[in-house]
Amino acid sequence: MNLCNKFGYFAKKIKVLNKAQLIEQIKQKASFLCVGLDTELAKIPKHLLSESDPVFVFNKAIVEATAPYCVSYKINLAFYEQYGRSGWESMEKTLQIIPSNCFVIADAKRGDIGNTSTMYAKAFFETYNYDAITVSPYMGKDSVSPFLEYKDKFTIVLGLTSNSGSEDFQMLSTASGKVYENVLTKTAAWGTPDNLMFVIGATKAEKFAEIRKLLPEHFLLVPGVGAQGGDLEGVSNFGMNKDCGLLVNSSRGIIYASSGLDFAEAAYHEAKNIQSQMKGFLENHHII
Amino acid sequence: MNLCNKFGYFAKKIKVLNKAQLIEQIKQKASFLCVGLDTELAKIPKHLLSESDPVFVFNKAIVEATAPYCVSYKINLAFYEQYGRSGWESMEKTLQIIPSNCFVIADAKRGDIGNTSTMYAKAFFETYNYDAITVSPYMGKDSVSPFLEYKDKFTIVLGLTSNSGSEDFQMLSTASGKVYENVLTKTAAWGTPDNLMFVIGATKAEKFAEIRKLLPEHFLLVPGVGAQGGDLEGVSNFGMNKDCGLLVNSSRGIIYASSGLDFAEAAYHEAKNIQSQMKGFLENHHII
Repeated sequence: MNLCNKFGYFAKKIKVLNKAQLIEQIKQKASFLCVGLDTELAKIPKHLLSESDPVFVFNKAIVEATAPYCVSYKINLAFYEQYGRSGWESMEKTLQIIPSNCFVIADAKRGDIGNTSTMYAKAFFETYNYDAITVSPYMGKDSVSPFLEYKDKFTIVLGLTSNSGSEDFQMLSTASGKVYENVLTKTAAWGTPDNLMFVIGATKAEKFAEIRKLLPEHFLLVPGVGAQGGDLEGVSNFGMNKDCGLLVNSSRGIIYASSGLDFAEAAYHEAKNIQSQMKGFLENHHII
Repeated sequence: MNLCNKFGYFAKKIKVLNKAQLIEQIKQKASFLCVGLDTELAKIPKHLLSESDPVFVFNKAIVEATAPYCVSYKINLAFYEQYGRSGWESMEKTLQIIPSNCFVIADAKRGDIGNTSTMYAKAFFETYNYDAITVSPYMGKDSVSPFLEYKDKFTIVLGLTSNSGSEDFQMLSTASGKVYENVLTKTAAWGTPDNLMFVIGATKAEKFAEIRKLLPEHFLLVPGVGAQGGDLEGVSNFGMNKDCGLLVNSSRGIIYASSGLDFAEAAYHEAKNIQSQMKGFLENHHII
């Protein structure tokens, strides 16, 4: 399959979901699950390794199995870049087979000076037509703004992350609150809830009440449920707003639910199980 | 040219320079210049656009013209990612033609939770065999450490950047100094001057004296000379240590010195001019 022309424009994700359409999908599917495609050859079932593109074949089976129960897929670029150019090809082919009613996130954690961030925005929002990209805020306004110029796409800025290293710099105290609180409030002024989300780690469920005071309207992308130890009930109780306002990601817990021939079926059951819990939380909050 | 096999391992940069070898190159060439390959189709000479891979042809001419006068090349990944997979192919081909005595930096500003940073480290240090990669510190220790596990490679952590947005979060005051000072001192404890450098923006020449008190031994990668308005003399006077300890980058000022048929010659003259100034600063500091 040759997807590229001479200047590198590819077949890409066709349809983009805006905020209203994302909320509609959450209500229709009774789910705010994002499935993270952290795909690596060392972890996928051995019988797939004889395929010409095992990463793509695995992703296709996972997407087909989980699409009824999730509203979003998150493609973690690191896992594709490790295989060089052929990894990018697997990523491109995966974008083609994700259903058009799913919100697709490039988990890329990019961010650079203005003219370079403009190139990253072009890469993910134009060349590949992702719905959203994760962005690191360390370099400040001119590093984030080029992404926010895309009004119908979402820039998802790292706020408070789920890893132990979040203590090192994000939690430092300043006269205007913790560093991550500065990131949330300053960045919120650069975009709108229609084109800006934040990453908030699920291992800090108790933080969601405080964060909702700062950001009542924004969607929050919540990694860390599952393998990273996060708590879906706590996140839902403290983090949900009138639109749901949450995308909760699970990667390894779903895609590697089984390493055998039944991997897709196991992923299906795992996604279905999480969706069933999510349906309950959406009902409790009168969103559905 | 087919560089990849089924699992995506490519022909890659063959030789790696360690710190001692980098210092040796600086002395031999009387230069601490890094040329930034921020290559984009909209800016390269029009006559190259009929080539099958204009980005690679441009880079090859620039590298051949500038290699006698610089010790390092910095490949800004954003500029390649914007063209999707074919951009990555141009990047891979460029790695092949950079002379083995040059230190090659992936300016990628990556950084994620531990298991994901491990994948990025694998991508740039193993799949492509870069000498160094730039890393964003926002996510803390477990996001930086996987890069530092490569003892013969350099992790180049963003400290104080050259853009206006550096004021937003890097300059926030905490009880233990500015946020960027926390980044410098904490991160310095996670690696050694043999595998850790920092990005320090050249628009803040007066800061280099303070930074050298915190980091007397580390190499500093200094973008921002040239198009971003930095001051080579100030940086050299305040930032040089006994090993030189500086890699000063220029991108647009060299590679786009002319947009005509003479682009490579113009880049040669611009690199030679900067090297000539650098030779003087190295002599003043008794390094050569």
